[in-house]
Amino acid sequence: MGQFLSSLPEEGIVYFGDTARVPYGSKSKATVIRFGRETLHFLLQFNPKLIVVACNTISALALPVLRKESKVPVIGVLEPAVTKALKITKNNRIGVIGTAATIKSKAYPELIHQHRPKVSVLVRACPLFVPLVEENWLKDKVTERIAHFYLKKLEKKGIDTLILGCTHYPLLKNVIGKEMGKKVSLVDSAKEVLSESRRFLEERGVLQRPTTSLRHRFFFSDEVPNFRKISKQFLRRSFTARVVQINERTS
Amino acid sequence: MGQFLSSLPEEGIVYFGDTARVPYGSKSKATVIRFGRETLHFLLQFNPKLIVVACNTISALALPVLRKESKVPVIGVLEPAVTKALKITKNNRIGVIGTAATIKSKAYPELIHQHRPKVSVLVRACPLFVPLVEENWLKDKVTERIAHFYLKKLEKKGIDTLILGCTHYPLLKNVIGKEMGKKVSLVDSAKEVLSESRRFLEERGVLQRPTTSLRHRFFFSDEVPNFRKISKQFLRRSFTARVVQINERTS
Repeated sequence: MGQFLSSLPEEGIVYFGDTARVPYGSKSKATVIRFGRETLHFLLQFNPKLIVVACNTISALALPVLRKESKVPVIGVLEPAVTKALKITKNNRIGVIGTAATIKSKAYPELIHQHRPKVSVLVRACPLFVPLVEENWLKDKVTERIAHFYLKKLEKKGIDTLILGCTHYPLLKNVIGKEMGKKVSLVDSAKEVLSESRRFLEERGVLQRPTTSLRHRFFFSDEVPNFRKISKQFLRRSFTARVVQINERTS
Repeated sequence: MGQFLSSLPEEGIVYFGDTARVPYGSKSKATVIRFGRETLHFLLQFNPKLIVVACNTISALALPVLRKESKVPVIGVLEPAVTKALKITKNNRIGVIGTAATIKSKAYPELIHQHRPKVSVLVRACPLFVPLVEENWLKDKVTERIAHFYLKKLEKKGIDTLILGCTHYPLLKNVIGKEMGKKVSLVDSAKEVLSESRRFLEERGVLQRPTTSLRHRFFFSDEVPNFRKISKQFLRRSFTARVVQINERTS
């Protein structure tokens, strides 16, 4: 989120985090679509010019449905990550790691093959990475061992590019990088969607002019203790977290 | 659930698992109460004679609210676990492990002190245990290391009884037992609530007479792949999982 504000400093952001119902990564396609639609309709009330699905699981499972239902453009994290990976791979062997739901959806391999059919795509679900990040076990030996367990096969198969297909994973970049070795480039799907969002607004000439009276709004479905403090630390301004119950029976 | 059916073989069970919104252990009191109330009202439609809250987090955070709102008795897992722990401790030093929400609520120490004020209660949240169980890492060195990290202080403080204050934890009994040593007795909150439920129904003379035409119903808020197979394996009969959206806006 901090990266988002700094890469689009002209824009007012309306953020929604579904903290009452996360994590999504172990849930079914039907449920992820339902939750994604509810969030979409909540955000559409604010008349945004662009909706960014800053979550790989929703992007992988629900993007076509959300695009169909939205009156404004919807950008997911997969396309920018895939574009970047295809740009940097030299041996056309790309690895993708993500939640169980993202990997099961096959959305990454399908998208990669639409662009370049002959790429070898090797995938691996890493379900313990999200709880490890949430609990801040970012450097422990335990995390290294779990990373080794998840990644050893990808390593052996000689990929030169690895897509971090979950927005939590960049926080484990050190451990993942150490495990994969220096020859493998890591693609941060969260970072790529930022430049894509900026490019999208610029291309259409709808980027806001710089102003000093920007308003950002942060909504969550559950309480976020110390959000004022956290936002001050990460976003350099202190914001209020507002708790809302989005309509949970729209589908 | 298998234990439940075998310890109350006379009774028809209506089960609801909130698979679309779990885990609860990192969520706020307000949200856990909201989810608990929604489940309560869903179950009350079936006119049960008893409601068992087979989850420590809901029991710790929401039991008073649920009891107040329910027209039928509500049993939680804390009381039976505490009764058992007080029965077996010899040195009056009891440890309690649970989710972050359960530990933060202080419900276990408060209940123990209501019964016996002079007991030393040592608590520890073990937030990675639930994902480890969900991912079936029940015996790995990683799990042992995480257990050591969580439990080493409880160990040093000389407790002789440890309440496994989360229904997932008995699956880690071996790892936890190994870490704590043979002198520490483990109390399984899930097991204790079963005997308590049976005792409750017997005392009131409302235990069903044995019949061969029992009906059990299993509801979940998200799809449960292979439930027929899983239920055959664990419950010795194959059941159908029905997906329902409980009313998510009652509060």
